[in-house]
Amino acid sequence: MRSATPVAAAIVRAMETPDTAADRTAPDTPEAGGIAAQDWAQASADPRYRAAVVDLLGVLACGELAAFERLAEDAKLAPGLDDKAALARMAAAEFHHFEQLSERLTAIDADPTAAMEPFAAALEDFHRLTAPSDWLEGLVKAYVGDSIAADFYREVATRLDSDTRSLMLRVLDDTGYAEFAVGRVRAAIEADPRVSGRLALWARRLMGEALSQAQRVVADRDALSTMLVGGVADGFDLAEIGRMFSRITESHTKRMAAIGLAA
Amino acid sequence: MRSATPVAAAIVRAMETPDTAADRTAPDTPEAGGIAAQDWAQASADPRYRAAVVDLLGVLACGELAAFERLAEDAKLAPGLDDKAALARMAAAEFHHFEQLSERLTAIDADPTAAMEPFAAALEDFHRLTAPSDWLEGLVKAYVGDSIAADFYREVATRLDSDTRSLMLRVLDDTGYAEFAVGRVRAAIEADPRVSGRLALWARRLMGEALSQAQRVVADRDALSTMLVGGVADGFDLAEIGRMFSRITESHTKRMAAIGLAA
Repeated sequence: MRSATPVAAAIVRAMETPDTAADRTAPDTPEAGGIAAQDWAQASADPRYRAAVVDLLGVLACGELAAFERLAEDAKLAPGLDDKAALARMAAAEFHHFEQLSERLTAIDADPTAAMEPFAAALEDFHRLTAPSDWLEGLVKAYVGDSIAADFYREVATRLDSDTRSLMLRVLDDTGYAEFAVGRVRAAIEADPRVSGRLALWARRLMGEALSQAQRVVADRDALSTMLVGGVADGFDLAEIGRMFSRITESHTKRMAAIGLAA
Repeated sequence: MRSATPVAAAIVRAMETPDTAADRTAPDTPEAGGIAAQDWAQASADPRYRAAVVDLLGVLACGELAAFERLAEDAKLAPGLDDKAALARMAAAEFHHFEQLSERLTAIDADPTAAMEPFAAALEDFHRLTAPSDWLEGLVKAYVGDSIAADFYREVATRLDSDTRSLMLRVLDDTGYAEFAVGRVRAAIEADPRVSGRLALWARRLMGEALSQAQRVVADRDALSTMLVGGVADGFDLAEIGRMFSRITESHTKRMAAIGLAA
């Protein structure tokens, strides 16, 4: 399915060659009277919109469950009990994100497992290809993953019906534990400045793998692709998708610079 | 420190050769006016009681964190996404037990990490020696561990000051996710009755390793030993400790029989 539909192929190109136009600071304002002005009952009357949201909640739920698993595993790399507890706390938070998404799927009469299944392989591959080799890499991965996920939720939420949007913002609101990673990484770089170059490369690799799995998901899933450019969600077109990915990549670069990892 | 104090040695003997007297259905009623009638402010005026409770909360917190870690790891053995999610849910619940215990340690001016550290090796050894080799062993371990922990909390809680007691019962109240394991194990035995013998042996081994690590903890930690027989908590003496371990072992045996694992 990799070279699936022309729409998916166009989206993948837009992700690869984002528009470099000036206005990248905020997503387009959703049109008045569009999806964002409707609630779930109204918006889901369109079966394409319904399928797209089930896909979206499915990929996010699958991502949160995979994140839980990996954070819990990476907690084993922690040098002490308090660091271990901090990573375990992040893992538990990801699990609660998963639970909220999964409960929402059930509430809209979708089977959570069926909704997640199509994305399990891409997420599994992402984590397999980015298994941290030490505690600092694990920390950076947790921080990068949590931040990119939050950016993505925020970007997409504004384009969805009011019920799905408030769920996304609620899930998002829960994060923030990742902040502790910043202090730890900064301290490690102060103690040994050579660490910075290695971790900067690592962060770039994480972003690269994340984008490449995201492209795979978009290419494979018609319902998601249709939402992204088919006019079933507000304000998306190919150029806007390119801009969205640019904004997410830029925020990532700024965050990395802020913790001492020049990209 | 294994052969530490005569008190610890006596406790270990009591654990090994429990009293087989008739009345094993309920713990002794705490004496009126004893610790159970006091709150933390009153009871902790005795530094021996304070030290014992810090030890107790430390070992429980360490146990919950280790349980979180192992359940999260065992979730990888799950045959499907819904089973994985169920085990992840148990892991997240254990993490919240850990958090409550850890917050309580902070609230009584004890450092959670320092309180946990003395017990990390025993718990690490327990989990290393009982790493499940497949999904069913993982399920049985989760179920056995959760149930024994709940029994122990319930037994000890009645002998403590009112504040510590209500914490223990609150933590305990949170469990129950383990029930899903029962259905899964029963179904596996129905599908292949030979599974039963293997899992029954496994459950016995789990209980044996748990008791042997518990003996090690008691032998190593004077503060805990003193609480158990030194009259700083209600209703404990050597005979009662033997009875407590008998009750816990019996409940375990009954639970195993109920899910089709003859002990």
